[in-house]
Amino acid sequence: MRYKQALIIGALMTNAMVTSHAGAAEASRPYVRMAELAIDPAQLDAFTAAIKEVQSVSVSTEPGCLVLYAVADNQNPAEIKVFEIYQDVDAYRAHVQTPHFQKFRAVTDNMVKSRTLMDMIPVSLAAKAK
Amino acid sequence: MRYKQALIIGALMTNAMVTSHAGAAEASRPYVRMAELAIDPAQLDAFTAAIKEVQSVSVSTEPGCLVLYAVADNQNPAEIKVFEIYQDVDAYRAHVQTPHFQKFRAVTDNMVKSRTLMDMIPVSLAAKAK
Repeated sequence: MRYKQALIIGALMTNAMVTSHAGAAEASRPYVRMAELAIDPAQLDAFTAAIKEVQSVSVSTEPGCLVLYAVADNQNPAEIKVFEIYQDVDAYRAHVQTPHFQKFRAVTDNMVKSRTLMDMIPVSLAAKAK
Repeated sequence: MRYKQALIIGALMTNAMVTSHAGAAEASRPYVRMAELAIDPAQLDAFTAAIKEVQSVSVSTEPGCLVLYAVADNQNPAEIKVFEIYQDVDAYRAHVQTPHFQKFRAVTDNMVKSRTLMDMIPVSLAAKAK
């Protein structure tokens, strides 16, 4: 895997914020969410398959869905952390209404023992692109 | 901000893992780290400037440094969460030896009241690229 061109998403996002009209700054900035999910260990394989599918479909098909990462705690693989970046809060609102997300939530509802959802403020969002 | 081409990093990473020789799978897979930092509120502006700089320089200049995100808790902006993806564990080891990272750690050492560092297992890493 090689990455030759650098894309500093943070720089783009900062520019987008600066050029926004003052009153619209919050609505137009990148919208970052995190989640901490405790999964039923007996259903972890099924949950993993479901989250891989919904994240791939969402990023591929939703224009404002920029980043969907899911990672597991090294000591307890059933503790999942999710890091999400949307173009703005409206893109997030659109995401949760999509059929693929609604299906994911329905299919995984009984796999998730606890769920902590967090709105985050972007500080620095630097990423290399292919 | 418009993203026209989709890059499913997760797919690339999965392929990279599958094509690795069995014994080298762990060493060659993407290496994900997270951190939770409690910053001295009186020094939050200085810390924010420092982490923006080091993350931008790192992603721009280090071939294996793919993603460095820092976000703040919406309720307590001095609680910072960091999400990092390296090409592999060796890229992470190289990162922490760079002069810019060493400078960042030295400059911010007295700004950080507590620091929790976590090795994470990639589950799904989907991102859209420009």
